[in-house]
Amino acid sequence: MSANDAGFKAALEEAKASASEGGVPIGACLVDANGKILGRGHNMRVQKGSATLHGETSALENAGRLPASAYKGSTMYTTLSPCDMCTGACILYKVSRVVMGENNTFVGGEEYLKQRGIEVVNLHSAECEQLMKNFIQKHPEDWYEDIGEDK
Amino acid sequence: MSANDAGFKAALEEAKASASEGGVPIGACLVDANGKILGRGHNMRVQKGSATLHGETSALENAGRLPASAYKGSTMYTTLSPCDMCTGACILYKVSRVVMGENNTFVGGEEYLKQRGIEVVNLHSAECEQLMKNFIQKHPEDWYEDIGEDK
Repeated sequence: MSANDAGFKAALEEAKASASEGGVPIGACLVDANGKILGRGHNMRVQKGSATLHGETSALENAGRLPASAYKGSTMYTTLSPCDMCTGACILYKVSRVVMGENNTFVGGEEYLKQRGIEVVNLHSAECEQLMKNFIQKHPEDWYEDIGEDK
Repeated sequence: MSANDAGFKAALEEAKASASEGGVPIGACLVDANGKILGRGHNMRVQKGSATLHGETSALENAGRLPASAYKGSTMYTTLSPCDMCTGACILYKVSRVVMGENNTFVGGEEYLKQRGIEVVNLHSAECEQLMKNFIQKHPEDWYEDIGEDK
């Protein structure tokens, strides 16, 4: 797993697309056991007024309806450590691995993912971290709302 | 907490609405600390081809963007024990209580909700259970897909 993976590149592109739309710059991409992209997407809080479309849930949503077998051996690439909701979504569908860009901005359900048998990889991407820094500096209220925290 | 609560009645109405649409008959309703309904909704797997709009996530989505303070003291009524994704969504937004119709059909993240400080109440509703029985008998493939299980 590296920052050169097509899945991670797609997740980062999604994060940048969200940034360019004025949204929370978190992107994700779900890749199956054979390396095929099943779905990709980004946070839609600002763009769609959505409380449930984070990066990972957007990728799952955009992958559409799939039987359980389709997720077997899959990897969820995400630019940021997954929140509790996205952690739960990865557990529900039994993705095999979560590869995150960074967790300096925020630490989500990494330990619980591991407890539930999901491999967790951190790529320590300075680029992902910078995207979040820029956003949080400009729009702290959107960010805290996104993680269910008071400012 | 009882089956006469407005929030539970709304969740059950949502489950029935989904059944009448041919969808997975699970509904939910998010009620704030003052008893005001913030959002309600039902599973949209069949209706919208959605992999992320379960009952509880639909209620959260339909509640729209809210600051963290709005969820304080809130109750998520749902007709069925919440799956791992919906469990995580309730944890993310720090709802105070999850009231479920039943858990004979399926047991989700109840223990984890409790671990994370969320009160869990089971209303043991025969009506909720019958809705699920009827659906699973007719459409087992939709149900197993919804919980990420092989048939």
